[in-house]
Amino acid sequence: MANLRNLALLVLAIPGVAMATPDVPHGDTAWEFVAGLTSEVGQRLAGSEAEARGRAWAAEKLKALGFKSVAIEPAVTRGYVRGVDLARLVSPVPQRLAVTALGFSGTTPGNGIEGDVVYFASLADLKAAAAGSLTGKIVLLDHAMKAAQDGSGYGPYGQARREGPAIASAKGALGIVIRSIGTDSHRNPHTGVTNFPAGIAPIPAGAVSNPDADMLVRLTAKGRALRLALTLTGKTTDNLPTGNVIGELPGRDPSLPSILVACHLDSWDLGTGAIDDGAGCAIITAAALKAQASGQTLRTIRVLMAGSEEIGGAGGDAYAKAHPERHALAMESDFGADRIWRVITKFGAANAALGDEVAAVLSPMGIVRGSGSVEGGADIAAISAAQKLAVIDLGQDGRHYFDLHHTPDDTLDKIDPVMLAQNVDAWAAVLGVVANASASIAPAE
Amino acid sequence: MANLRNLALLVLAIPGVAMATPDVPHGDTAWEFVAGLTSEVGQRLAGSEAEARGRAWAAEKLKALGFKSVAIEPAVTRGYVRGVDLARLVSPVPQRLAVTALGFSGTTPGNGIEGDVVYFASLADLKAAAAGSLTGKIVLLDHAMKAAQDGSGYGPYGQARREGPAIASAKGALGIVIRSIGTDSHRNPHTGVTNFPAGIAPIPAGAVSNPDADMLVRLTAKGRALRLALTLTGKTTDNLPTGNVIGELPGRDPSLPSILVACHLDSWDLGTGAIDDGAGCAIITAAALKAQASGQTLRTIRVLMAGSEEIGGAGGDAYAKAHPERHALAMESDFGADRIWRVITKFGAANAALGDEVAAVLSPMGIVRGSGSVEGGADIAAISAAQKLAVIDLGQDGRHYFDLHHTPDDTLDKIDPVMLAQNVDAWAAVLGVVANASASIAPAE
Repeated sequence: MANLRNLALLVLAIPGVAMATPDVPHGDTAWEFVAGLTSEVGQRLAGSEAEARGRAWAAEKLKALGFKSVAIEPAVTRGYVRGVDLARLVSPVPQRLAVTALGFSGTTPGNGIEGDVVYFASLADLKAAAAGSLTGKIVLLDHAMKAAQDGSGYGPYGQARREGPAIASAKGALGIVIRSIGTDSHRNPHTGVTNFPAGIAPIPAGAVSNPDADMLVRLTAKGRALRLALTLTGKTTDNLPTGNVIGELPGRDPSLPSILVACHLDSWDLGTGAIDDGAGCAIITAAALKAQASGQTLRTIRVLMAGSEEIGGAGGDAYAKAHPERHALAMESDFGADRIWRVITKFGAANAALGDEVAAVLSPMGIVRGSGSVEGGADIAAISAAQKLAVIDLGQDGRHYFDLHHTPDDTLDKIDPVMLAQNVDAWAAVLGVVANASASIAPAE
Repeated sequence: MANLRNLALLVLAIPGVAMATPDVPHGDTAWEFVAGLTSEVGQRLAGSEAEARGRAWAAEKLKALGFKSVAIEPAVTRGYVRGVDLARLVSPVPQRLAVTALGFSGTTPGNGIEGDVVYFASLADLKAAAAGSLTGKIVLLDHAMKAAQDGSGYGPYGQARREGPAIASAKGALGIVIRSIGTDSHRNPHTGVTNFPAGIAPIPAGAVSNPDADMLVRLTAKGRALRLALTLTGKTTDNLPTGNVIGELPGRDPSLPSILVACHLDSWDLGTGAIDDGAGCAIITAAALKAQASGQTLRTIRVLMAGSEEIGGAGGDAYAKAHPERHALAMESDFGADRIWRVITKFGAANAALGDEVAAVLSPMGIVRGSGSVEGGADIAAISAAQKLAVIDLGQDGRHYFDLHHTPDDTLDKIDPVMLAQNVDAWAAVLGVVANASASIAPAE
């Protein structure tokens, strides 16, 4: 009796659909954005046809929501085209491993490579290995990342992924497998880019899930010699198409420098790019609309949905080159959709009062003011550096972000609609201040 | 979020091994059993070479722990030999899906099948579909399983997996994909057997992960027509080798019927069979030893680690045929390793006091006495039926069991050593009562 035509009726009556559709108020712009993007496009690997579909989808969505001057600005990127990813323990016992290639990994033959394993408990230990000591070996690189509210573990522990493969290659290794840079315990490996500097030959480089790493480490701790087989057939490819999507909600005074709000539209290909960074695009879109819900802001709010953030930042770089016009301030959302708990502002001395005003509108929402450096985000890094822009960083609770980051599990169900709405509210409150600031917003440094 | 720029290049040299090895007391027999089995053997699919390695490992382990009369008793089983499992949404947008074949699925050609999707929100809706109405279609079968402390959702909702494929086949479907029978939200599909009765042609039958099902349902709810491609090349195979491992801790009076404690040694192949059912084998082994730690019990405790439970119960059936000797009582652990919260006893009227004594030793541990029917477990079903055995069921908290059941995520890290020890304590307390019962233990029905 159920078919596609009468499904709308079933949706109302069948509890099963409640599993797929949380209790989200109809017309929740942010939720509908990220639900649509992850369902109607899915993964959006930088340089891929799927990323191009993502740009088209986002541009249409912005137009439908009333944004003006919506445009897709093409760019090119170096990319990683995924192939077959397989890993198995050959001895002491045969076991399949959940593995992903890292972006820019070297390429194995179709039938893979095989080698004896040398275990390192940390990147420091790998760095200390003697030159040539890894010839013909496969490195197993461990670490001890822990979850942190501000996501700060990703800096130091992420170096195992970013630097480990090149260091292993320089010491002669045939390949490398790292413990996923993540804080979960699921059979979903975490991908992400690695870097092989000029002169260092790329070697096959993968990440196994934390439970797989646990098992390998248990055998190692018992003194068992490990041998791994690794098949990673993906290829690094130059000059792939990418691009940025921009759109504006014009302000009352178009002569004033605009407020730039950014996210990135590309994602890793294992999941559907929900928390990284469909949520960010949803938050900035909904917040911009909410900031103008009761009338135009003084300044224009410009939305930048950047391409190719995950694989090198070509989108943000292209935006900075294409848009030398003066901006007033930049903000980025690229850390999931959990609760915003902290704000850090970077303003020039002349705009100290504006920073205080931003903090003041957030304080009733329980958001504390922090100090320290403002990263802002990769997509606004180039424009911020070029124009020495004022930046506001709305810090999200990152304790669960690295459970999901760059895994197959980065899907819509991981977003809590209530937390997503809190993000939109906080962003809209901040935009209500800065997009209505009549005082000149000076460079911040 | 990808490459944070300007990161402090600080790497802490914390031993990674700490992450892989929870704080488990050295000499924790149960933990060491399940850690060893999942690491040194891994998955143990019924009928496979890996299952045979599991039997050898378990027999050696029992001998090393001091069990007597340890034996491997061969049997044969019908099995499912997994092939390539792939699924993708073809339209309205291309998306890869996380899929697993169900056991006894029909086999697709190497390049798969493709068909338009007909969605059913429940098994009841599928049953109501008109004969022939699904010709050439791929069924997408949904359900609304929720977690329950006693695991009771698996009965009714599991029918979508057990019966759905045959019903779809009978109505002409080309293939079927069900929402995984599970309560989690990870990209890990849940496998398990389905049944095609005689006269019903097996069709390719898979399960997609819950997040994938959510996405398909979202598109369906928007009125989008779906088309799926499905490649499931595994094959059902008769007469595969399986077998049971048995061992005994002899009692002081070998003439008394023994206490049978059971688990199953086979597992599904996606994970490593930690909660299903390495934990059960670990619990019964450690509890038997603990019950005799201060001296021999009156009755012999016999351990049965059955083969091929997951795919039809050939091990338990073979045990019942091979062991017509009178048993006193049977118990099985096959529901993970979370806290035991309830006991249900099945004794004949003459042994009511023994049931009360069992409940009394568990009460100080916070374990309540329940009533109702005692399932016991699949591996003791045949022997219990043949001998009308008394049965004790120690019920574990099942709220998270179906997050992991039959998935790649059934790995050691999901077991809490403290909860595992609580299971051993409860089992040992019960064995201390029943294995020392001098009164005759009568048939229960």
